[in-house]
Amino acid sequence: MPRNVFSRRSFTSGAAAAALATPVALSTSGATVTASDDEPQPQPLGEIKRITMYAEAMPDGQLGYGLEPGKPSIPGPLLEMYEGDSMMIKLVNNLDVEASLHVHGVDYDIDNDGTPMTNSAVPPGGSRDYVWHSHTAGTRKDGTIQPGSAGYWNYHDHAVGTPHGSGGVKRGLYGGLIVRRRGDKLPDKQFVIVFNDNTINNVAGHGPDFTATLGERCEIIMITHGEFYHTFHLHGHRWADNRTGMLTSVDDPTPVIDNKIVGPGDSFGFQFIAGELVGSGRWMYHCHVQSHADMGVAGLFVVTNPNGTVAGKHNAEAMKPTRDAPAHGSHDTT
Amino acid sequence: MPRNVFSRRSFTSGAAAAALATPVALSTSGATVTASDDEPQPQPLGEIKRITMYAEAMPDGQLGYGLEPGKPSIPGPLLEMYEGDSMMIKLVNNLDVEASLHVHGVDYDIDNDGTPMTNSAVPPGGSRDYVWHSHTAGTRKDGTIQPGSAGYWNYHDHAVGTPHGSGGVKRGLYGGLIVRRRGDKLPDKQFVIVFNDNTINNVAGHGPDFTATLGERCEIIMITHGEFYHTFHLHGHRWADNRTGMLTSVDDPTPVIDNKIVGPGDSFGFQFIAGELVGSGRWMYHCHVQSHADMGVAGLFVVTNPNGTVAGKHNAEAMKPTRDAPAHGSHDTT
Amino acid sequence: MPRNVFSRRSFTSGAAAAALATPVALSTSGATVTASDDEPQPQPLGEIKRITMYAEAMPDGQLGYGLEPGKPSIPGPLLEMYEGDSMMIKLVNNLDVEASLHVHGVDYDIDNDGTPMTNSAVPPGGSRDYVWHSHTAGTRKDGTIQPGSAGYWNYHDHAVGTPHGSGGVKRGLYGGLIVRRRGDKLPDKQFVIVFNDNTINNVAGHGPDFTATLGERCEIIMITHGEFYHTFHLHGHRWADNRTGMLTSVDDPTPVIDNKIVGPGDSFGFQFIAGELVGSGRWMYHCHVQSHADMGVAGLFVVTNPNGTVAGKHNAEAMKPTRDAPAHGSHDTT
Repeated sequence: MPRNVFSRRSFTSGAAAAALATPVALSTSGATVTASDDEPQPQPLGEIKRITMYAEAMPDGQLGYGLEPGKPSIPGPLLEMYEGDSMMIKLVNNLDVEASLHVHGVDYDIDNDGTPMTNSAVPPGGSRDYVWHSHTAGTRKDGTIQPGSAGYWNYHDHAVGTPHGSGGVKRGLYGGLIVRRRGDKLPDKQFVIVFNDNTINNVAGHGPDFTATLGERCEIIMITHGEFYHTFHLHGHRWADNRTGMLTSVDDPTPVIDNKIVGPGDSFGFQFIAGELVGSGRWMYHCHVQSHADMGVAGLFVVTNPNGTVAGKHNAEAMKPTRDAPAHGSHDTT
Repeated sequence: MPRNVFSRRSFTSGAAAAALATPVALSTSGATVTASDDEPQPQPLGEIKRITMYAEAMPDGQLGYGLEPGKPSIPGPLLEMYEGDSMMIKLVNNLDVEASLHVHGVDYDIDNDGTPMTNSAVPPGGSRDYVWHSHTAGTRKDGTIQPGSAGYWNYHDHAVGTPHGSGGVKRGLYGGLIVRRRGDKLPDKQFVIVFNDNTINNVAGHGPDFTATLGERCEIIMITHGEFYHTFHLHGHRWADNRTGMLTSVDDPTPVIDNKIVGPGDSFGFQFIAGELVGSGRWMYHCHVQSHADMGVAGLFVVTNPNGTVAGKHNAEAMKPTRDAPAHGSHDTT
Repeated sequence: MPRNVFSRRSFTSGAAAAALATPVALSTSGATVTASDDEPQPQPLGEIKRITMYAEAMPDGQLGYGLEPGKPSIPGPLLEMYEGDSMMIKLVNNLDVEASLHVHGVDYDIDNDGTPMTNSAVPPGGSRDYVWHSHTAGTRKDGTIQPGSAGYWNYHDHAVGTPHGSGGVKRGLYGGLIVRRRGDKLPDKQFVIVFNDNTINNVAGHGPDFTATLGERCEIIMITHGEFYHTFHLHGHRWADNRTGMLTSVDDPTPVIDNKIVGPGDSFGFQFIAGELVGSGRWMYHCHVQSHADMGVAGLFVVTNPNGTVAGKHNAEAMKPTRDAPAHGSHDTT
């Protein structure tokens, strides 16, 4: 059971680790969300994880989810579960407007949709539980495969500003959710990168820098939000364009890429070895849309040698934006 | 032979079922479109389907294809065939400008390209036959695979407004084409969703709602047209990002997704079980580009319980657009 | 050993063949870029290829890479290698500004990143060597797969105009790189198509036309640069959406497509048989974004019969742009 996945600090910029409280019994309403009575149910439930998240404003007017009051972060806590686990998340809305929690990829009944359209948002000053389930893959009676929940998913507000959460997402109410299949490799380091309009993790003009030691197994969770399409590019490293980012055999025909087009609501992830076959260095990651890169939708993945040194000559001046970056709050939905 | 696929009503919004007339012999010109004489030909021909489609104007100035005069629809009829089948489509152009039928994915000789560039469009008031073939997968003499025609394809005008059909596509001249591999599962329900600029199926401000009963096998055919990229998102359901939307085994490494970036000319489809593990409800589908969702590029996939009830509290007010939706006919190519 | 791959003329519009000088020994610094000492190294080095490339201005103000002084081309030379090969490229910068060579997909240490951020660009009038390695797939000690370098990659300037090379890329400093796995089929003909803003290979208003004989094995290398997303569409032909464009078996579930959304920095490639099952003709390829097609982001793939004739009626007038195409040099980064 991946308790360690949750207690391990997530290496997101400003995101606190998702420390879980003691598991508790889920409300039995969760048991009713089956497709039909005559289909085999996927598997016994795994662990039930219970956490509290707080939607709060920051001094600069941005918004974040946090695991403790007064500690919002952008992105919000990186949540993880194994297929079969459930999560019960109490969302405490400390904003002065309705807010919510809508999640991609996992199972929830319509009352846990987290949208104004389903009356499942949280009024200002209120709180409510959201229950998410997950399941392993299985075979249906008709022989087709019921896919498991494993994936690099994301959660976000779906209520602030507009019923689609355009204001909440714009100002920072989003985070990553990883559902792992049992047997999936666990990484040494994790980095959450969110292209939200022309910011990374809502910081305009430069991205967060991430650090790993040569040879460490790293995991990037890449999420896109807002208005624009982007192309995520990483220097010196590459990944397979599948569920895990890793090929399943040496002759797997999956494309290996280092540049991927993405749009709002998309999330994907991949594992790779820091500096494999390329060594230590300050490796850039950036949006490859030229004007976006020039605005500073770019950061560094710093691979250190075991002795702490970093190879290469770094020109910090060249990392500065050469075009105006977007200002916070300039969007009509904020 | 999938006669039932054609006679089954397609559950598109406003699209008539594609009722086929009696099959007839194809002109022998179809037999000459082989790659080279020394390559094995794919297979004996399957069924030959003959239909007539009418390109017509609607009272509101939009355009549609229909299977009967006076009954154009947007999208046009959903066409289906099995690999190996051929279609001969007589296009009757009841517009006052040149129009055509260009198709993706299947086989046709250059005279059936359906474009002004190949002199294969239809003058106003005229008609002509378009012949499309399809084929099963096979192995070429050099050991490489000749892929079969199976896929979720689309057809559209390539002549109205500009030689690329920018005006015809803008105003509604498009539809879906499914080519199935023998053995492919057939769905209980089908839904065609076309993001055309910021409309769904050329309706601005709200998408069509679709209904299925809990446990039914549903198929979404998702097509994109126009100018903009979009991200198609479905609440509470997900699919494999491959040819069918279904994994081939429980450890298939294909990504399972619920959000996909798409652009004009793209089409994809997937099957899934209504409400599987999430239950009844009014599940939203929408473009996840925030401004597009706010304009109403969003609709409902309503999953009913077997007794006809629908779970959840619906807030219809929250589905209304909060930004101006695009007006019809505002595009310079119409 | 694929000497023939390099000596074979690449059939790009205006691109010279990449004629290689005699292989020489690489500097031993290349041997130090391993991920960690206890991981198995991938394989003995293959061939070492040494070439010189010149970055130069053209009379019309555009820029190109070339294999000889005074002969720049857009795109630059199509480079090819087998997994395990290395390339040492001397870049001679005949521009009056700093320029560089940044590559996707292959292995290079941080000093060969080809960016101002790593002080690895070339001053005006200067030159320097860039060293790229490649490797075969293998299995790491932890059982995961180290993917090989095979892929359809691209190289480009990362210094002219802005530190991200927005001016260099805009004006033509880019090209394709193919890394093949041993055993990969070799094509008869190759075509490099770069959608760079609303030009193809930096020509606005019309794309280059490509010619092959019915039955020839063709390879398209499709690269995107600049600001805009596009959808690449080819009439009458299709490909598998994987590493090679070819299915691995007749029941391979990979989608077969003829339309693909792409963004800046993306590159992909595929092989197919000219006119297979559709015959001779002037088959269009174009961006399927309607306004882009109307501006002339479109060209012809001409499939001739063995006797040199071409089927179909061609209407050259209909290929002319119906919207204003972008002018050269109108971009603020040039």
